[in-house]
Amino acid sequence: MTALNLLDYASVLIFALTGALVASRAQLDVVGFVFMACLTAVGGGTLRDLMLDRNPIFWIADPTILAVASGAALLVFFTAHLLESRYSAILWLDAAALAVAVAAGSGIAVAQGQPAPIVLVMGVVTGCAGGLMRDVVANELPLVLKQGELYVTCAFFGGLATVLVSDYGAAEAGLACAAVTFVARAGSMAFGWRLPVYKGRPPRTKP
Amino acid sequence: MTALNLLDYASVLIFALTGALVASRAQLDVVGFVFMACLTAVGGGTLRDLMLDRNPIFWIADPTILAVASGAALLVFFTAHLLESRYSAILWLDAAALAVAVAAGSGIAVAQGQPAPIVLVMGVVTGCAGGLMRDVVANELPLVLKQGELYVTCAFFGGLATVLVSDYGAAEAGLACAAVTFVARAGSMAFGWRLPVYKGRPPRTKP
Amino acid sequence: MTALNLLDYASVLIFALTGALVASRAQLDVVGFVFMACLTAVGGGTLRDLMLDRNPIFWIADPTILAVASGAALLVFFTAHLLESRYSAILWLDAAALAVAVAAGSGIAVAQGQPAPIVLVMGVVTGCAGGLMRDVVANELPLVLKQGELYVTCAFFGGLATVLVSDYGAAEAGLACAAVTFVARAGSMAFGWRLPVYKGRPPRTKP
Repeated sequence: MTALNLLDYASVLIFALTGALVASRAQLDVVGFVFMACLTAVGGGTLRDLMLDRNPIFWIADPTILAVASGAALLVFFTAHLLESRYSAILWLDAAALAVAVAAGSGIAVAQGQPAPIVLVMGVVTGCAGGLMRDVVANELPLVLKQGELYVTCAFFGGLATVLVSDYGAAEAGLACAAVTFVARAGSMAFGWRLPVYKGRPPRTKP
Repeated sequence: MTALNLLDYASVLIFALTGALVASRAQLDVVGFVFMACLTAVGGGTLRDLMLDRNPIFWIADPTILAVASGAALLVFFTAHLLESRYSAILWLDAAALAVAVAAGSGIAVAQGQPAPIVLVMGVVTGCAGGLMRDVVANELPLVLKQGELYVTCAFFGGLATVLVSDYGAAEAGLACAAVTFVARAGSMAFGWRLPVYKGRPPRTKP
Repeated sequence: MTALNLLDYASVLIFALTGALVASRAQLDVVGFVFMACLTAVGGGTLRDLMLDRNPIFWIADPTILAVASGAALLVFFTAHLLESRYSAILWLDAAALAVAVAAGSGIAVAQGQPAPIVLVMGVVTGCAGGLMRDVVANELPLVLKQGELYVTCAFFGGLATVLVSDYGAAEAGLACAAVTFVARAGSMAFGWRLPVYKGRPPRTKP
């Protein structure tokens, strides 16, 4: 459980940074920074815990998590102007947080003895739901929908790695999952890796 | 329970098709298709199960549901270009899925012995929440808010049918509910049926 | 519990009014009014109850709450044209509902014996989540994100008041919380009170 808890902490910290960076783009006040940081940081894990009926949910069991997220928000509030380009900082931090969160979410489902499809779903939900909530609340185009970029797809392959490696141990599975997710996402951002997208012919119009 | 389960399967399949069609409009890759299909297909039912504290929620109890939704996504990924007009296909499929989902949701509440208002709410939530999540995530104007078209209203009358007919048997109530919902929605789309909408005079401006 | 229940009723009524006013801006039909009123009225409390694992959630335990919200929707459907300026009516009602809902949410967490951070979060969630859902569904810029206005911040300070005063009694804490929240929000709207917002220098562009 300790390794899984550490993963949860790490993803909370990094997602909180991305939430606070979105708050800096929207020029909110410091409480707004904390709100966006906490929403992004615990949104995916909260949904996971509600769906798996884990009780109490992770940040009620351990409110330190909220302190970590709030600390990240304060850090960004006072230092975001030091970043040359906030948007690319958001993207790379988000990739790291995605990798860690997918590993944490799918690992928890494995620890519960869930079957492979549920492990996959929990990896994707824990990885993608917090950032999705951040983007929906901030009225930005959700990253998960950015056309022609791998995002949900990375989480999906990360979850698949957890499923395949989980027989060899939880730590190995977590490492494999985080590595696959991050490499896929980084490859997509740096080298333009992508899956073929749907290219519909424009619908024929009736004459 | 079997009839209710079948209804859940059918609504999952059809909602998944509409989610995948929205993914085709956004030109996502195949994992994006699966994501949107699953979100739309199980979103409403997941919310219903969380609120009614049904445990485990339906697609964790039966992961086949996720396979059905993913299959629908793959089908659309390879065949959506065959549809002449994807948007009208979305609308009509959505009407069918709405009818089935309202019947499933309100039927489950009746089976739990909930009072009439909760039956109504669960019908509306199961019917409307998945499509609402689909539209919010895809950044489209939610169908439930399309001005002057019946949508939530159809779900509401469907739920009312369940309440009125449920004394005669679950199958009868499900049939009545689905029929009322679909006829109301189809009438709204084909013949322009609607309830009077709010027509406020423009607010007077202070001189 | 009675005082807390009364607070829940009051916030349901007022939030329902704001939801119905948003429905009037979107010119929905009467069922759309009821939908938006109920979503706004019970959204925050539903999320709170799911996260605190209170079972059944408050409006399933007491469906009268749905009747109150629906009644508010009908009232607005027939009388909204009497309001000179609907938007400012939404803002002021929302401030009152926020104050009451933060008091209700943080009070329930205190009654459960939760630690201070969870009390704070439950105050903010109960106060802000319903209005946030209303704005996201209606495709309006979320009030919680309005740049340079106190909103989440007011809920936060209200929750803080609950934490500080809760040793003196639940009623005193509720009153203090509602007063702090409302005064902060009213001061923000009427006198422009605000916290310093993040003012980043525009990111330097590479030469």
